[in-house]
Amino acid sequence: MVKKPLIVLNFKTYTEGMGDNAVRMAKYCEEVSDESGIEIIAVPQIPDIALVAGSVKIPVYAQHIDGVGAGGYTGHITADCVRSAGAQGCLVNHSERRLLLADVDSAIQSAKKAGLTVITCTNNISVTSAAAALSPEYVAIEPPALIGSGIPVSKADPDIVTGSVEAVKKVNPNVKVLCGAGISSGDDVAAALELGTYGVLLASGVIKAKDQKAALIDLIGKV
Amino acid sequence: MVKKPLIVLNFKTYTEGMGDNAVRMAKYCEEVSDESGIEIIAVPQIPDIALVAGSVKIPVYAQHIDGVGAGGYTGHITADCVRSAGAQGCLVNHSERRLLLADVDSAIQSAKKAGLTVITCTNNISVTSAAAALSPEYVAIEPPALIGSGIPVSKADPDIVTGSVEAVKKVNPNVKVLCGAGISSGDDVAAALELGTYGVLLASGVIKAKDQKAALIDLIGKV
Amino acid sequence: MVKKPLIVLNFKTYTEGMGDNAVRMAKYCEEVSDESGIEIIAVPQIPDIALVAGSVKIPVYAQHIDGVGAGGYTGHITADCVRSAGAQGCLVNHSERRLLLADVDSAIQSAKKAGLTVITCTNNISVTSAAAALSPEYVAIEPPALIGSGIPVSKADPDIVTGSVEAVKKVNPNVKVLCGAGISSGDDVAAALELGTYGVLLASGVIKAKDQKAALIDLIGKV
Amino acid sequence: MVKKPLIVLNFKTYTEGMGDNAVRMAKYCEEVSDESGIEIIAVPQIPDIALVAGSVKIPVYAQHIDGVGAGGYTGHITADCVRSAGAQGCLVNHSERRLLLADVDSAIQSAKKAGLTVITCTNNISVTSAAAALSPEYVAIEPPALIGSGIPVSKADPDIVTGSVEAVKKVNPNVKVLCGAGISSGDDVAAALELGTYGVLLASGVIKAKDQKAALIDLIGKV
Repeated sequence: MVKKPLIVLNFKTYTEGMGDNAVRMAKYCEEVSDESGIEIIAVPQIPDIALVAGSVKIPVYAQHIDGVGAGGYTGHITADCVRSAGAQGCLVNHSERRLLLADVDSAIQSAKKAGLTVITCTNNISVTSAAAALSPEYVAIEPPALIGSGIPVSKADPDIVTGSVEAVKKVNPNVKVLCGAGISSGDDVAAALELGTYGVLLASGVIKAKDQKAALIDLIGKV
Repeated sequence: MVKKPLIVLNFKTYTEGMGDNAVRMAKYCEEVSDESGIEIIAVPQIPDIALVAGSVKIPVYAQHIDGVGAGGYTGHITADCVRSAGAQGCLVNHSERRLLLADVDSAIQSAKKAGLTVITCTNNISVTSAAAALSPEYVAIEPPALIGSGIPVSKADPDIVTGSVEAVKKVNPNVKVLCGAGISSGDDVAAALELGTYGVLLASGVIKAKDQKAALIDLIGKV
Repeated sequence: MVKKPLIVLNFKTYTEGMGDNAVRMAKYCEEVSDESGIEIIAVPQIPDIALVAGSVKIPVYAQHIDGVGAGGYTGHITADCVRSAGAQGCLVNHSERRLLLADVDSAIQSAKKAGLTVITCTNNISVTSAAAALSPEYVAIEPPALIGSGIPVSKADPDIVTGSVEAVKKVNPNVKVLCGAGISSGDDVAAALELGTYGVLLASGVIKAKDQKAALIDLIGKV
Repeated sequence: MVKKPLIVLNFKTYTEGMGDNAVRMAKYCEEVSDESGIEIIAVPQIPDIALVAGSVKIPVYAQHIDGVGAGGYTGHITADCVRSAGAQGCLVNHSERRLLLADVDSAIQSAKKAGLTVITCTNNISVTSAAAALSPEYVAIEPPALIGSGIPVSKADPDIVTGSVEAVKKVNPNVKVLCGAGISSGDDVAAALELGTYGVLLASGVIKAKDQKAALIDLIGKV
């Protein structure tokens, strides 16, 4: 029996994953998910959430939420509003959108109240421990230097992954660990699972691929 | 002949202006605009842009954009994506979502490339001058202490409004001045026009009103 | 036998604790510490560290450090430089100077390398847990609403203090808990110790007192 | 007759310009300034201001100030405190320490009240215009990509320098323009003056030089 990974695909602000392209990309995710039985989550730009969530049945997540709620706030992304637009979860504290410690906490609390699943991104083992203490459903360990590098964290720095898995077990065993940064192939996904994670968070390896659907299929081919 | 003001209605993150409420609020704007011939711009939360822009014909603006474009950015709000979701313009540097000086500039440049109209918010006369030097279509002067206060800037601090109008004329006469903070009645709007502005930016005075449509009608009743 | 508390006095940017006033204030701390045997730490503004550390023998801490080291950084406060100026420790993530989660971590790591003791400030129990996971010597729990209020956290919200003490024990029992916000009297200090803390972090209650030395003496009178 | 440039030397957080090294570096600046009659300003780390200002007679500037004054602020760098520690001026909004637009303004206003001269750093021509509207004594145009590159802005992008000089003339002719990024030789300084600037802002070209004093002498050798 093989464990089935969770695949979280961050569309970032790439043109290849925006507007109509976001819908097409999400449909590829849906097709591959349906065919394989592997859960794939689409994470489009925030203004695209409604469009994408209206087009596919797989879960759609927001790339970011702020920790504020309803009130006198302008330009903030609230948990309630992304939920209302169709999101089922969100990333929090991605290395390209880091938050103040107190705001990571308030964003996670807001997400929980709104019924959103949270993936908190972290950059090293100690930050993973801290994030786990805040009780999101997932932490995703992504060493910033490897993001977009094509060098998978699972090869370049397996200790940061196993160290994160152990640290989370100690602080809060309910939190599941994903890993990201440099993931682009089925081998990378298989290696991530070997290291004790539940799945991967990735972006350019699929979004910028010449054949996005083929890249997705390759990604899950080894599991 | 009476000058017709521009009314920009910021929905902030108020529940009364989110999701279905955002659509209803925008429709009130549309009805009042159609009946009066006064331009009213709806500024809902970013995840609601697509929904609102698909429901009304009046212009819809984003509450914020970041100064980054397509690429390896996560959680950022790009000009291209809000444009693609239906926005025709955006606020930049609202006092509740202030930006680094360099990012105010890059946000305005990104907006221009994407064909978005920009309203840059400022907090005093010297910042208004600086903002005008960056050539947005509008600056909106809003002393932070008066925002949400119910005390209109046009009464509490008319000099900051006329000072802003003069400062802008000197630095960049193509930029139009709006004023905000504490605006909630038709008198406030009339006073704002008297002081040399093109219109007003407001939020709670209408969004939190018991009868939102009546508040809108009152707002434009004196012009 | 009575447990002796640690008293950490944050001078903030108050005029009454700047320049020559900072030296006088630190000397009061030294006198009261010498007379009572209670450790008092002076935390002046960063440009005053050298002056204050050159004038007293009690420990001097920095109000903030950034998480960066030597290199191409401008305007950042490095652990090495405050150490070289005479500081023996630092606050990190004060509610008036919050840091990104990843920067709280890197600031703590930098401080350790430089031999500085770290007090990480937190705003609630879950953030206290997260901070403890990053292994500073101390966490100081300070509900922001009570800072400068004159209402001691030990009375207004004792559960946040005991909850923080318990949370830290679970995550990292080596970390000691201080409490702050609204502390100004000996009763407040005694109450803080009762709740399981090692001492208090305070500011205006002493710095803004008419008679600073009398306020200090009163502070330690009950322990 | 040759125009004499202003030389502003940013020590950044380099070890070669910290603590005792900062004093030695500042003394080199003083010697070269005395011998040549050219004004050289030393910009050490903030905790080193008192030490350096106590050791030399040339002007010492802070690398950064915040826009807040006396009060309930922790870890902020106030104009009054750096002034009290011996600084005569400050950088504001360096590309490595960018500020919110409103804070660039309040920092400049605070500096003026405290009697500090301000050099506001900018990254392109439009931001230079905006900065000039805020009336600092100097703006220093530094394209971020060239900082620390060894490729002088005066060669790589002379148009950004002349464009900045022209933009400032239009908006506020009292503001003087410096240029920075990649400056390391006397030729670079001469070229900067040719382009209409009053001098240069530099760092690694001198601070990281094997022979810091020789690098300084070379720097002013062509003017």
